[in-house]
Amino acid sequence: MTVNAERIAAHRLYGSWQYRYRHRSQATGVPMTYSVYVPPEAADKRPPQVIFWLSGLTCTDENFSTKSGAQRLAAELNLLLVMPDTSPRGEAVAYDLGQGAGFYLNATVALWSSHYRMFDYLSDELPALIRQQFSTGDRQSIMGHSMGGHGALLMALRHPRRYCSVSAFAPIVNPSEVPWGRKAFGEYMGQDEKAWRQWDSCRLLADGGAQPLPVLIDQGDADPFMPEQLQPETWAALARQHQWPLTLRIQPGYDHSYFFIASFIDDHLRFHAGYLHT
Amino acid sequence: MTVNAERIAAHRLYGSWQYRYRHRSQATGVPMTYSVYVPPEAADKRPPQVIFWLSGLTCTDENFSTKSGAQRLAAELNLLLVMPDTSPRGEAVAYDLGQGAGFYLNATVALWSSHYRMFDYLSDELPALIRQQFSTGDRQSIMGHSMGGHGALLMALRHPRRYCSVSAFAPIVNPSEVPWGRKAFGEYMGQDEKAWRQWDSCRLLADGGAQPLPVLIDQGDADPFMPEQLQPETWAALARQHQWPLTLRIQPGYDHSYFFIASFIDDHLRFHAGYLHT
Repeated sequence: MTVNAERIAAHRLYGSWQYRYRHRSQATGVPMTYSVYVPPEAADKRPPQVIFWLSGLTCTDENFSTKSGAQRLAAELNLLLVMPDTSPRGEAVAYDLGQGAGFYLNATVALWSSHYRMFDYLSDELPALIRQQFSTGDRQSIMGHSMGGHGALLMALRHPRRYCSVSAFAPIVNPSEVPWGRKAFGEYMGQDEKAWRQWDSCRLLADGGAQPLPVLIDQGDADPFMPEQLQPETWAALARQHQWPLTLRIQPGYDHSYFFIASFIDDHLRFHAGYLHT
Repeated sequence: MTVNAERIAAHRLYGSWQYRYRHRSQATGVPMTYSVYVPPEAADKRPPQVIFWLSGLTCTDENFSTKSGAQRLAAELNLLLVMPDTSPRGEAVAYDLGQGAGFYLNATVALWSSHYRMFDYLSDELPALIRQQFSTGDRQSIMGHSMGGHGALLMALRHPRRYCSVSAFAPIVNPSEVPWGRKAFGEYMGQDEKAWRQWDSCRLLADGGAQPLPVLIDQGDADPFMPEQLQPETWAALARQHQWPLTLRIQPGYDHSYFFIASFIDDHLRFHAGYLHT
């Protein structure tokens, strides 16, 4: 089978490889970039299980790959990490608002709807491409930061049987109610808020129906975006109500930066490995 | 005693703090920026020992602080990390060639000599400031990458009694003989190459006289700069001749990036801790 992705970078890292690829996406209709960390071959030759990382506003696939330090423990735990970009980009996508701010949804407003289809891209196209490119186990989990934390919870709620576990750092849990989300949702889907419901992890959780998954959420209490944009307690209350097994940790003094992510990423990898490897 | 440095950033990291400071430097005559990682208080209350990290061409104090992952183990080993900038900067230093390329020396050519005094800055001013700001042990070691590897070896050779150990990633060991160094040395010190000798770690080693220090050097064999700019074997041959205890490791497949640094930084911290903590 031909793999339709061009390798644009390869760096030796922790005894194996950090790769960067570009491919023409069916879902978004433009070239998309993603990074992958492949762990060293395991002593028992078992193929690695897969974790997707979804980044926050303004990020590319490279923020996590250069700043999180996640690959050190991923190498040890035999986990393959996939780091997609946060939106379509490039000349064919000439909308400045959207670049770095795809919100992991399918847009319906005409200006955006032909390219801004990150939900379709992440649901099917990218996982299938990864399975084509690499020899992996058949399980996957998902995690993310801020807008990417919203994305991870969204993917888990919309596709509960496809993931073993989900985790997030400072997620935007209730995008239809907070300024960052309202601006993006209004642009991408128009002002009829009923259409927003399926892209809001609080609303999806409240609607019930999704099979509960193990969830870990870390939130710094010195995060300047917590009071207005993030509100993890709202999600936690709904999770309790719907019997989702959630660990919410409020981390004293931590902010919204990659220093916060680096401090706790090892806990997230061990959390996911516990479900991926059993 | 008044500490004459302004804190411009503070991020909680691995149970303690990553700081960024700006101060008006006596040595360079302009405001200088530096970052510091302070480890959590040790169980036995012993103050941390200090390691200086010198970065490479084009870097600021932030490359290492965001990309190396060093703070994780520094927290565990009770090491305080100091990350200076790589040159003077700002409006008062209106020379583009020099910014990010200070080469850790004192310039003598008039255009540069009033500000480009990184050797004086790193020898005395910054260590004294760190001791004023933080409660530390009385030992220090030094390490760096590329131009900063040259800087670390240079500092160790010029001040052998001030450091317990020295290490480097892909250092420019012989700047007076390779293009990067020859360009900078010619600019900063003029064309009389006799004046370059005291800033070249191969020449200083060949001259003898410095007390040998434990040295660890890592070099990737896929580093595109190795053949022309780096040449660690030249330094290794001189080190053997002058009874310096050197470990030179050629790392297969690794390049010149921070992925290379992240892969081996833990080894460097453990190496230094072995000398700082005995």
